[in-house]
Amino acid sequence: MNKYGRLCRSTHLRFALPHAGIANRSVLVLGRKAYSSQRVVNNIRNHRWYSSKLAPKLTAESYPDVKRDQRFKSLSSEDIAYFRSFLSESELVEANEGNDNIAAFNEDWMRKYKGQSKLLLKPKTVVNVSRIMKYCNENKLAVVPQGGNTGLVGGSVPVFDEIILSLANINKIREFDPVSGIFKCDAGVILEAANDYLEEQGYIFPLDLGAKGSCHVGGVVATNAGGLRLLRYGSLHGSVLGLEVVLPNGKIVNSMHSLRKDNTGYDLKQLFVGSEGTIGIVTGVSILAAPKPKATNVCFLATDDYATVQKVFVRAKQELSEILSAFEFMDDKSLLLTKEHLKDVQFPLENEYPFYILIETSGSNKEHDDSKLEAFLESAMEDGLVVDGVVAQDETELANLWQWREMIPESSQSHGGVYKYDVSLPLKSMYSLVEACNERLTEAGLLGDAPKPVVFAIGYGHVGDGNLHLNIAVREYTKDVEKCLEPFVYEFVQSHFGSVSAEHGLGFQKKNYIGYSKTPEEIEIIKDIKNHFDPNGIMNPYKYV
Amino acid sequence: MNKYGRLCRSTHLRFALPHAGIANRSVLVLGRKAYSSQRVVNNIRNHRWYSSKLAPKLTAESYPDVKRDQRFKSLSSEDIAYFRSFLSESELVEANEGNDNIAAFNEDWMRKYKGQSKLLLKPKTVVNVSRIMKYCNENKLAVVPQGGNTGLVGGSVPVFDEIILSLANINKIREFDPVSGIFKCDAGVILEAANDYLEEQGYIFPLDLGAKGSCHVGGVVATNAGGLRLLRYGSLHGSVLGLEVVLPNGKIVNSMHSLRKDNTGYDLKQLFVGSEGTIGIVTGVSILAAPKPKATNVCFLATDDYATVQKVFVRAKQELSEILSAFEFMDDKSLLLTKEHLKDVQFPLENEYPFYILIETSGSNKEHDDSKLEAFLESAMEDGLVVDGVVAQDETELANLWQWREMIPESSQSHGGVYKYDVSLPLKSMYSLVEACNERLTEAGLLGDAPKPVVFAIGYGHVGDGNLHLNIAVREYTKDVEKCLEPFVYEFVQSHFGSVSAEHGLGFQKKNYIGYSKTPEEIEIIKDIKNHFDPNGIMNPYKYV
Repeated sequence: MNKYGRLCRSTHLRFALPHAGIANRSVLVLGRKAYSSQRVVNNIRNHRWYSSKLAPKLTAESYPDVKRDQRFKSLSSEDIAYFRSFLSESELVEANEGNDNIAAFNEDWMRKYKGQSKLLLKPKTVVNVSRIMKYCNENKLAVVPQGGNTGLVGGSVPVFDEIILSLANINKIREFDPVSGIFKCDAGVILEAANDYLEEQGYIFPLDLGAKGSCHVGGVVATNAGGLRLLRYGSLHGSVLGLEVVLPNGKIVNSMHSLRKDNTGYDLKQLFVGSEGTIGIVTGVSILAAPKPKATNVCFLATDDYATVQKVFVRAKQELSEILSAFEFMDDKSLLLTKEHLKDVQFPLENEYPFYILIETSGSNKEHDDSKLEAFLESAMEDGLVVDGVVAQDETELANLWQWREMIPESSQSHGGVYKYDVSLPLKSMYSLVEACNERLTEAGLLGDAPKPVVFAIGYGHVGDGNLHLNIAVREYTKDVEKCLEPFVYEFVQSHFGSVSAEHGLGFQKKNYIGYSKTPEEIEIIKDIKNHFDPNGIMNPYKYV
Repeated sequence: MNKYGRLCRSTHLRFALPHAGIANRSVLVLGRKAYSSQRVVNNIRNHRWYSSKLAPKLTAESYPDVKRDQRFKSLSSEDIAYFRSFLSESELVEANEGNDNIAAFNEDWMRKYKGQSKLLLKPKTVVNVSRIMKYCNENKLAVVPQGGNTGLVGGSVPVFDEIILSLANINKIREFDPVSGIFKCDAGVILEAANDYLEEQGYIFPLDLGAKGSCHVGGVVATNAGGLRLLRYGSLHGSVLGLEVVLPNGKIVNSMHSLRKDNTGYDLKQLFVGSEGTIGIVTGVSILAAPKPKATNVCFLATDDYATVQKVFVRAKQELSEILSAFEFMDDKSLLLTKEHLKDVQFPLENEYPFYILIETSGSNKEHDDSKLEAFLESAMEDGLVVDGVVAQDETELANLWQWREMIPESSQSHGGVYKYDVSLPLKSMYSLVEACNERLTEAGLLGDAPKPVVFAIGYGHVGDGNLHLNIAVREYTKDVEKCLEPFVYEFVQSHFGSVSAEHGLGFQKKNYIGYSKTPEEIEIIKDIKNHFDPNGIMNPYKYV
C-alpha cells in the first residue's frame, strides 16, 4: 500500500483527503537521498550549477556561419579605464588568461553556448547602468544584459566578445503595499527571495518556476517567463504594473509609480516584457502580488491515454474552476528518466501508466477546496477517466508530488544532454509532436541503446496553457540529431498554428525560427522597433530577431 | 421591513442568504417604472441615445485654440468617387446639408464634443478598411476610427472634418474553442452580443461595463476599457491573445492565431490595446474567455465613513478571496441623484448612510460561496464595519441591486450635464479628491441651488482597482466650472502619484494632461511611436498625445 492517500480503479472511494482522517494516513519521508527542487536551487546559489557535465564548445565554433558584427568596437584598455572611473573593484571583473574567473557568466545553464567576453560589469546602481549603456552606445561596444543566467535558449550569454552586464548587484526590495498588493523591487532580486518576502505578508509572487532559486525578477520579466502559476494568475503582461528600464542610449524610463489602472498613452512597459534585453535593460519591477492561498491540495493521477488527459482537463476546469492553480501532464518516458535520476525516492504510484497528471488547487477555505477536489476525483474515477492516483496528505507529501514534475527537466539530461523545445500547440495535437519526434528519430537510426545518440523524446508541460515541453534526451549533442529535429519541430508547430516558443523566448537558439510563429508583417515591425530603440544594434546582438 | 434578505446593526444575524430559506424572503418587483441597465442599452441599439438633452456646440467653437491641421487635405469629390468605386451604397454616407444624417457619428455620447465630418464610411470587410487607410494615408486625409461611440473623453468623434471610419459593419463572431476558451470575433461585434454568445457555451467575456449594449469589442480593446470584472479577470493586456490591425499605411497585421502562450518577439498587440485609434485600426480580436460562474451573490452594504470602506475591502479580499468579483463603493450623493432619477424604484435600505458598498461573488459552488459570504458578513457586522445591508435572494434582486451602481453615470447628468473624471489613486487618498472638489466649488460660489451651475461632486468606483469615478453634476457646462476643476483635479492626482485616466483613456479631453501621469521620457517615446507608425499624423488627430 502506498503511503499517500490512495485512489485506484477498483476501489475508487478509498482515496481520502486530509480532513477525512483515514486510518492509513502517514507522512511520506523521502530519506536522506531525497532531492527537492528547493535543495537544487539552493545549490545553484552557492556555486554555478549546470544541467550537464559536458563542457560546452565555443558558440563561435559550433555555429561558424554566425560572424562577429564588425560594426562593434573591440574592448580596449581605455574602455576599461573609463568603467573603472566610476565602478568599484567588486563591480568590474576582467577575464583572466583562461577566462575561468568569468566562465559561469560566459556559459549558459544547459552548456550549449559559450561566449568569449573579457569583461563582466556588475554595477550596484541604476545610474551606473545608465552610464555604462550611454558609453557603450556612443562607442559601439556590444552588451549582453544578464540576470540569473538560467535561460534555456542561449539568450543571456555572449556569442563573441560582448560585455556582460549583470544585474546581480541591483537586488533590493523597494516597497510593498499590503492593501493593494503592489510589490516593487530591483531587477536583481532572486525570484524565490521575492516570494519568501511576500509570503511573510500573506501574499505570493504571481509566477513560479523551477529556477526560482537563481533566476532574477528582472530576468523573469525581460524574458516573459511563464511557469507554474500562469493558469491561475495569468501572464506577466497582465500582472506587471510598471517598470524601470535603461534604454540603449542610457536614458532611464520609469513607470514604477503606476497603480493597478493607468490608461494614458501606449502601454510602453509591455514592449520590454519579453524583449530579452534587446531594446533596454529592466532595472526595476512593480508587480501585482496575489493573496497567498490558505489551502493547497495536490493530487497525482494516472490515465490510459492522451485523449483522456484532455477530458480530465475539461472536467477539472468545470469542477475545480476558480481554485484550479496547476494542471500538468507528463508521459511515461518523462517519469522513467526521473525515476532513474531520483534513484531511491519512492514513486507515488505502485504501477506504471502511459500518462500522469498533477493537479494543484489553491483557495481560501480548506474544507471547501477538499470538498470540490473530492467531488471532482469521484466523478473522474466513476467515469473511468482516472485509473489510479494519490492525494497529498500534508506539506511534505505535496512537495514530494511536485518534485516528480519539477525534476523532469534535470532528469531529462542525465544521460548527457538534452534538446529542449517549448512550444504552444492546440491541446488536441499537442502530444502528437512527441510521437512524431520519436518515430522520426527511430527511422533515422538515431534513437536506441548506446552508442546511438538519442535516448528518446519525452513530453510534459502545462496543459492548462496549451504549452508542451518536448525534451530530446541524448547521450551527446550531434549535428545529425539537430538536423533531424530542426526545422522539423518548427514546421510541425507552424502547420498546427502553434508557437515555436511558448515561454522560453527566442534567444540565440530560436533567432532564425521566429518566422514559424510570426507573420512577415509582424517581423517587419519587430525589426523596426529593434532598430528604432537600438540603432547601433549593441543590445544582445546575434539573437532574438 | 425591507423586501430583501436583511442586515442591520442591532440584529446582525437577521440577514439571510438564499439557501437559508428565511421567512420574509420574497422577490422584489420594481414595477413598470423600473429601469435596468439592460433596458437602457437595448434602447441605445434602436436609436441614438445621449447622456444629455443639451445640444452640443461644435468642438471647434468650444475650443478655439485648437486649429485644424493644414497638412490635411480637404475632402474632394474625387476622393468620394474613389471610395464609391469599391464601397456599396450602405457602406458610404455623405452628410446632407445640415449634417443631420450623420449627427450621431459626429457627436459623442456625453454631447460635449461635436465634429464636422462630411463623410461616414462603414466598410464591410477588413480588406476595404485597408484600401481606405492606404488611400487616406497617401492623400493625407485625416480619419477617426469609430466603434460604438460610447467613449467618455471625446476620442471617437471628429474634431474638424476628419472622415469617420465606423467598424459597425465588420461584426461577425469568427470562432470559439470551448476547450481552451479562446474566442475570436470582428471588432464591430457588440460587447453584449459577444457575452451572450459565450454564455450559451458556458463562458463569459472577461470584461463587462455599463455601455455593453452598444460598445464594440474592438472599441473596448482599442481604448483598453476596464469595467466591472477587472478585479477578477484582470486587464485586457492579460486576456487579449491576438489582434488583427490595419496600420495607417493600409497594411494588415494579424496575430489572431496566437494561442495562450507565445513568447516570440515583442508583444506588438499590446501597443494597440489602449492606442485609441492613433496608430492602427483594430479589426479583429482574439481573447481568452472566462468560465461562466455557476453561482453569483450580490450584497449591498452601508458603512459610516470612507475609512471603513477600506477596512471592508481588506476583509473581503481575505475572506472572499478567489470568489470576490466586484467591490464597488458609492457615496451618499451618488445615490441621492440615482434615487431622484429612478423615482419610484424602492431603495434597498430603509435608512441613508454616508457610504455604500456593492460586493459581488462569483464561483463554481453555490453552497461554498454562500458559506464564505455568510462568514464574511457576520465578521464584518460583528466588528462594526458594516452597519446595514441586504443580500440579493434571486436573479431579479441581484440585477436590482446592481442597478443602484450601474445607473449612477446616467443619473449624474440628470440635472443637465456632468464633468466626468476617472482617476487612479492610492486607496487611502481616493475619496479626499471628492471632498476637495466640493470644497473648492463651494468656495468659488459655483456649487448650490439653481441658478448656480454645480449640483455637487459625487464619488463612486472600483475600490478593488484603486479607480475613482469623480462626477461633477451640473445644470450647465460653463468655463468657470471647467477652470475651477482643471488642472486642479489633475494636479491633485499627480501629487498623489495617481493616473489622470484609469480606464477612460485620453481622447480629446485629456490630451493635454498626459504629463500629469507620465514622465517626459515616457511621453517622448509615446510621441516617437505615434510618429513612427503614423508619419502623416492622419489617425485620430488632435487627441491622445
